[in-house]
Amino acid sequence: MIHLDLIGIGTGNPDHLTLAAVRAMNAADVILLPDKGADKAGLIDLRRAICAQVLTRPVAIVEFAMPLRDGAGDYAQAVHSWHDAIARVWQAALERALPHGGRAALLVWGDPALYDSSLRIAERLMAQGLALHVQVVPGITSLQVLTAAHAIPLNPLAGPVTITTGRLLRQHGWPAGAQHVAVMLDAGGAFQALDPAGLTIWWGAYLGMEQQALEHGSLAQAGPCILARRAALRAQHGWIMDIYLLKKETADASG
Amino acid sequence: MIHLDLIGIGTGNPDHLTLAAVRAMNAADVILLPDKGADKAGLIDLRRAICAQVLTRPVAIVEFAMPLRDGAGDYAQAVHSWHDAIARVWQAALERALPHGGRAALLVWGDPALYDSSLRIAERLMAQGLALHVQVVPGITSLQVLTAAHAIPLNPLAGPVTITTGRLLRQHGWPAGAQHVAVMLDAGGAFQALDPAGLTIWWGAYLGMEQQALEHGSLAQAGPCILARRAALRAQHGWIMDIYLLKKETADASG
Repeated sequence: MIHLDLIGIGTGNPDHLTLAAVRAMNAADVILLPDKGADKAGLIDLRRAICAQVLTRPVAIVEFAMPLRDGAGDYAQAVHSWHDAIARVWQAALERALPHGGRAALLVWGDPALYDSSLRIAERLMAQGLALHVQVVPGITSLQVLTAAHAIPLNPLAGPVTITTGRLLRQHGWPAGAQHVAVMLDAGGAFQALDPAGLTIWWGAYLGMEQQALEHGSLAQAGPCILARRAALRAQHGWIMDIYLLKKETADASG
Repeated sequence: MIHLDLIGIGTGNPDHLTLAAVRAMNAADVILLPDKGADKAGLIDLRRAICAQVLTRPVAIVEFAMPLRDGAGDYAQAVHSWHDAIARVWQAALERALPHGGRAALLVWGDPALYDSSLRIAERLMAQGLALHVQVVPGITSLQVLTAAHAIPLNPLAGPVTITTGRLLRQHGWPAGAQHVAVMLDAGGAFQALDPAGLTIWWGAYLGMEQQALEHGSLAQAGPCILARRAALRAQHGWIMDIYLLKKETADASG
């Protein structure tokens, strides 16, 4: 039996770790660190630094290369094939690291529940008969770091919030009936698909990291600034991760 | 100038605290603990225990009585009046504790960005001219503890999630176009307003605490069990806080 802890570690600032995450990391026999290739080499460096900072006993650290998602063809099919490929890599890494079972920890960016594939991949392995017991340790998401950095609420007063993706925003426009919309997984500027009238944006990139960048304002004014800044930052750092919150003005602006 | 840290502390388990929260608590001149009255006496006890556990230097702890919200009349108006009343109590507590300025910390259940009034109350004080600098430290929300406890994702694969309140679910029914709906601030069983066909529920009460209770299943079957269990737990403990995630079956059930 392999006990697998999926540990949310926040967004790169070691201070995002919870005491539960620190405890789970120190209780592991092995910590698996996914390597996403040269473009995102800084991310595995951050994970290594987090391990070095919080481990108080020697825990084996095993790095494994993450397969890349096929960018062509049907999106949903490509994601499913990609998850299958990750499941094979996980299984090989787990069986190599823990041939007689034990306790593995996987460090997950943000929280394993929000736009992360770890739970779906663990399910695949269990469905294939791997004796796996999964436990989740929640972590601070980039969305929480965004609202904290801007010191704003996520939801309108007593109102709802929709969390969606850049892809869906481009495809379907503003979600029906929504006042506050948080957009994640945006490959860049999906807000351009919206009529900016009455919309305000709070944007953040590299949230929680040293490179953190913030912008906010009316979408009409801030939108073009964000696109320009995003392109410059991406060129400078070689990669970018950014998200934003959009708020629609309503008759009752008190919220 | 008063520097006010709004510190998300998770849902009662001291292990939910982030290293940033521990650091901010220890950097404070005074920690303000809201007291919500005899019914919820357990909650201030939990906050006291958290302080005792993580403070490594003597920090003044000041408890203050929270005003109660008027349950009668217009809901939005009652919330606004309530926030005004809380703002007056905060101002008095801050000026008493820090007559010459300094650093205050307020411990916020969950995360200050999600269904919490602290940011709106701090804004009121600043609008009234109080020299206040607000900083937010994100914390683990009950929603994250719910999905972690059930080991489930919050969002459908590459899909959106709506976070809403029990009140809105009762008033407006299932949010248009939604697949996954998280419901917070439910005074009890708002899901009864929905047609249960095709809906699955993951429910949790006292999330992260010793009393934690979980249920899940088809809404048709689990709904009545949850209502009965909720009533029994409320009678046993004198209060209850619970939330749930609802998922709608779609043609593509792979998500």
